Amino acid sequence: MTDERDLHVYLLPELAPAGALVGGVAVAIDVLRATTTIVHALAAGAGGVRPVAELDEARTLADGMPAGRVLLGGERCGVAPPGFDLGNSPREYTPKKCRDTTIVLTTTNGTKAILRAAEAERVLIAAFANYSAVCEQLRHDARPIHIVCAGTDGDISLEDTLLAGALVDYLAEEMEVHVNDAARLAWDCFENHGRILLGALEVGKGGANLRGLGYDDDIKAAAEVDKFNIVPELRRDPLRVEIGAVGIVKSRWNR
Amino acid sequence: MTDERDLHVYLLPELAPAGALVGGVAVAIDVLRATTTIVHALAAGAGGVRPVAELDEARTLADGMPAGRVLLGGERCGVAPPGFDLGNSPREYTPKKCRDTTIVLTTTNGTKAILRAAEAERVLIAAFANYSAVCEQLRHDARPIHIVCAGTDGDISLEDTLLAGALVDYLAEEMEVHVNDAARLAWDCFENHGRILLGALEVGKGGANLRGLGYDDDIKAAAEVDKFNIVPELRRDPLRVEIGAVGIVKSRWNR
Repeated sequence: MTDERDLHVYLLPELAPAGALVGGVAVAIDVLRATTTIVHALAAGAGGVRPVAELDEARTLADGMPAGRVLLGGERCGVAPPGFDLGNSPREYTPKKCRDTTIVLTTTNGTKAILRAAEAERVLIAAFANYSAVCEQLRHDARPIHIVCAGTDGDISLEDTLLAGALVDYLAEEMEVHVNDAARLAWDCFENHGRILLGALEVGKGGANLRGLGYDDDIKAAAEVDKFNIVPELRRDPLRVEIGAVGIVKSRWNR
Repeated sequence: MTDERDLHVYLLPELAPAGALVGGVAVAIDVLRATTTIVHALAAGAGGVRPVAELDEARTLADGMPAGRVLLGGERCGVAPPGFDLGNSPREYTPKKCRDTTIVLTTTNGTKAILRAAEAERVLIAAFANYSAVCEQLRHDARPIHIVCAGTDGDISLEDTLLAGALVDYLAEEMEVHVNDAARLAWDCFENHGRILLGALEVGKGGANLRGLGYDDDIKAAAEVDKFNIVPELRRDPLRVEIGAVGIVKSRWNR
C-alpha cells in the first residue's frame, strides 16, 4: 500500500537503530517528567528550553547567558542538583518564574530521548499534557513517524510506553499505518492501562521512584491529559525546544 | 511483603542488566523459532542440544563429535547454512532424525537469549509448545524469575513478548509477584493478543520474515500450545540443553 505510513515506536532511545529516524518526524516522550515539564515551562511563558546531557555543560551554558533571563533546571536521582534554580517538577515552572526566560534543562532520561530524536527532520515533544495537540500535528505531517521513549535509567517504562500507545491508537484509526512490533506492544499497553492513567503512572518504576521522593503531585500533573494546547518542537543551531504549534482542534483522547 | 517474588521480563537479551539474573531462575524465549525447535528436538528423542553463537564454532564442535550421533542445525537469515544437516524449522526435527543424537544449534536470535540467561542459577527453555510444563516448573521454584526474550535481529518481538506475558499472567494469578514495567507490557500484550495467537505470530516482524521465506508451517507449529510436556533445561560443562522435567499437571493456558 503506497499510502501506508511507517509508525515505529522505540521503547528506549538506544533501541532506535542508527539512521532509522532520518527524514522522519520524531516524537520524544518522557512523561515522568522531562517532556511534561517542558510543556509546562513553555506554556508558562518560557521562550525556549535548551536540553543538555551533562551537568557541567548545563552550568557552563547557563553561565554564558544574560543574568535574569536564564534558569537552570533539571535533576539527578530525581532532585535538583546543587546550585540549580529549578528541579524537574512541572509545577515548579510557573509563569512568574518562566516568563521570558530560557530554561537550560538537564535530566537523566528525557534529555537522551530528545537528543536521540534529533536525528529526525522534525522533532516534537509529547506528554499527556499536550496529547491531542501532538496528534493534530502528526495527522498533518506526511513523514514516517518515530516515537522515542525515554524509559527510566535504561529500563523500559510503563508511562512512556502508554503515551506512545495512545498516539499509535489515534494514528492507526486516522490513517493507514505500518507499525513495528514495539508499536503493537505500546498499543496493547494503552488498551489496558489507558483507562487507569493515574494508577498506571503511579505503579511503574518511574512513578514509584517519584512517590519515594514525595513527588506525588508531579505524577498527578503528568496524568492531566490535554491541559495545554501547545506542541514544543526542536529547533537547531543552537539545539533548543520552542513552541512549534498552538491549538487543538478537538480532543483525541479516546479513553 | 516477604513472600513477593521478583518477576522480571527483559524484552531483549541486552536489556537485562549485568548481574541481574544471578541466583535466579531464568526462562529463555525465542518462539520463532529456536526455543520451539529445541522443544521439538528433545521431544523427538535428541539427547541434548548444544547452543552455539557462531557458525565456525558450531562446525568445529560438530566435527569433534562421533559421526552419526550429531546433527548440525540452525540458520542464518532464516535458512540452513551450507553443509548443515537441519535448518531451524521445528517440523524438521523428527524422531527418525533426532533419536539418540546431539544437536549442535546456532541461530541468530535464540542462542543469544539462552547464553544471556545462562547467568541465572537455573535456566528453562520455553515455547508455546511447552507453556504449561514451564508454568509448573516455575510454580515450584522459589527463586526470583527472569524471563529473557530473544527478539528479532535486535528488535523487540511481539511473539516472544506474548509468551512472556502468558507466563506473567499465570504467575501473577498463582503467587504474589513484584513485576517490572516490561512484565506489565508483556502482560498487556498477552491480554490483547492471547486470544488470537496464530494471528499475532503471523503479524509480527519475525512471522513476516518467515512467511516471506515460505515457512508458514513453522508459525503454525510455534502457535501450538502445550503440544509437549517437557521442559528443556540448561546444563553446564559443557553448556547444553537437555530435558529437565516431564509432566504437565494441568493446562495453564488461560485463553
